[in-house]
Amino acid sequence: MLRSATGLPFDDIRNLVAQMPDPDEAARAAAAERQRQLVKPPGALGRLEEIAIRIAGWQGREIPVINRPTVAVFAATHGVAGRGVSPYPPEVTKQMVATFTNGKAAVNQICGVFGAGLRVFDLALDLPTPDIVEQDALTEAECAATMAFGMEALAGEPDLLCLGEMGIGNTTVAAAIFHGLYGGEAEEWVGPGTGSTGEVLARKIAAVRAAVARSKAHLDDPLEVLRKLGGREVAAMAGAILAARLQRVPVVLDGYVVTAAAAVLKALDPTALDHCFAGHVSAEPAHRVVLERLGLRPLLDLDMRLGEGSGAALAIGVVKAALACHAGMSTFAEAGVADA
Amino acid sequence: MLRSATGLPFDDIRNLVAQMPDPDEAARAAAAERQRQLVKPPGALGRLEEIAIRIAGWQGREIPVINRPTVAVFAATHGVAGRGVSPYPPEVTKQMVATFTNGKAAVNQICGVFGAGLRVFDLALDLPTPDIVEQDALTEAECAATMAFGMEALAGEPDLLCLGEMGIGNTTVAAAIFHGLYGGEAEEWVGPGTGSTGEVLARKIAAVRAAVARSKAHLDDPLEVLRKLGGREVAAMAGAILAARLQRVPVVLDGYVVTAAAAVLKALDPTALDHCFAGHVSAEPAHRVVLERLGLRPLLDLDMRLGEGSGAALAIGVVKAALACHAGMSTFAEAGVADA
Repeated sequence: MLRSATGLPFDDIRNLVAQMPDPDEAARAAAAERQRQLVKPPGALGRLEEIAIRIAGWQGREIPVINRPTVAVFAATHGVAGRGVSPYPPEVTKQMVATFTNGKAAVNQICGVFGAGLRVFDLALDLPTPDIVEQDALTEAECAATMAFGMEALAGEPDLLCLGEMGIGNTTVAAAIFHGLYGGEAEEWVGPGTGSTGEVLARKIAAVRAAVARSKAHLDDPLEVLRKLGGREVAAMAGAILAARLQRVPVVLDGYVVTAAAAVLKALDPTALDHCFAGHVSAEPAHRVVLERLGLRPLLDLDMRLGEGSGAALAIGVVKAALACHAGMSTFAEAGVADA
Repeated sequence: MLRSATGLPFDDIRNLVAQMPDPDEAARAAAAERQRQLVKPPGALGRLEEIAIRIAGWQGREIPVINRPTVAVFAATHGVAGRGVSPYPPEVTKQMVATFTNGKAAVNQICGVFGAGLRVFDLALDLPTPDIVEQDALTEAECAATMAFGMEALAGEPDLLCLGEMGIGNTTVAAAIFHGLYGGEAEEWVGPGTGSTGEVLARKIAAVRAAVARSKAHLDDPLEVLRKLGGREVAAMAGAILAARLQRVPVVLDGYVVTAAAAVLKALDPTALDHCFAGHVSAEPAHRVVLERLGLRPLLDLDMRLGEGSGAALAIGVVKAALACHAGMSTFAEAGVADA
């Protein structure tokens, strides 16, 4: 998929972006008409109606179904973690991957409640990306290959793809990507993450400022921002979001780090997130800012800030309920109920 | 339960309010300590942690479980509906009750997704309460008996009680109750409900203003507000919320009408809703106002405005996920993950 005649991997990515399909407008319209006929005041199910109509468009049928919701968690390690930007040591990334595998993390429990599958993608955890204050996280070939690896999230043919991540130091990386994409001051994009305060937070801000200043990333294209500031899980998730679009699979985003992957694609093409839902808005302060910037209104707002796909997984319940209402309710005519 | 030596039914209700138990603080503290040990940054599950800790307090155990979530929908008819305050004719109430029974309404589908039971309580649908612009909705004996009937929602021993309602005209009734309890102007409390606009909305505002002026309800005690402005489903839900508290069962409120029942109890005793969660904030504009007044922060905000317990039922997914995380996650020690 990523071998082009020109041999320039980012050109391959751009070619894929250019091939992104639009939703099926006839299916959308049919779903919207069905919503008007269901036995409720028009619009009374609020965003549940919007969810059903949008997924109808991507699945190309009036009554869409979700049978294989999948949470894909991408884990990676980051040289910048060595700067003490997190209260947790870098080895926690590997330990948490083991916890996912053992079924004992938060995301496992939430997947269990909603009948979702969970896949964990381990991105060379023993080889952290270089410290982005000092050098670029990835070469172009590495970045494009990592994006291609992320496309494997579609291999199990999920019909709803929820994205999550694990990587000590990766809210630092996400903040650097937003600072690189959108400019402003480093402080605007940096928050506590897993709980950075005081000197740890100061080191985090300094790292983001220095990394972006070094890479001059905001002067370059979005794929260069991604490549220079990393990390591997962000690149892989960008690939997964793009692959889902190419296969017309709706995506539920999680928190701040997943949103950084989405933002790279949005910067490449303003329609690139048309198949995406923001599962939740996290407690990371800048997450609300970036969601607004991306035109994504979160489904949930529960002060969560865990990552690992937990907010996206929780949103599966809302999506399932939306589709169940859409498919299972009577119309006014079927129910013999007087319409307004 | 409602036969007292004095023969004054509202005194019986007040006696029950006086008997409301407090949560088990030791269980709450144990649950909070467990949350601190689970393999996540402290507080990272946000409101999911609060849910688990609060339910631990009501169930009196560190690790609470919800096995029998139940949605109880109370349906009633209202004389004030004859004033044309709704775009739907009054007979829709009975038609929708039949739709609930046939499993074809929105709330049925949502219950199905989350494995919740549904019970529909039909409150003398062929005998609408009197038009509250003209006379009181209920006598004291009727109101107390209806509250007692609502207590039957606990008969199936639910361990989570979600409340819903159906009754053409009942957002008019709810607005009158809030106007009666809190004063202000009728316009502040009246919204579109199922879709009242223009002249319908003007009639609704006029009815609320006239009903409260006639009853002088805001000069009386909260049970008098309930009795004079009705209706039966509101009285029954107030009884259900009170009975749930007496049995230490957590309650999830739905929209504007359910919240009117809760507001009556809160006005009787400021701790009366300590066992309640606001399942969602509806699109009815005053709902946000009254939730803030009651100190209830909604779990969901999805522009829903259907009633019938749909928002409360949707919140079951959040509650189930909260308890699943609380029960199923490893502690840092169990998982062998380095703590901060």
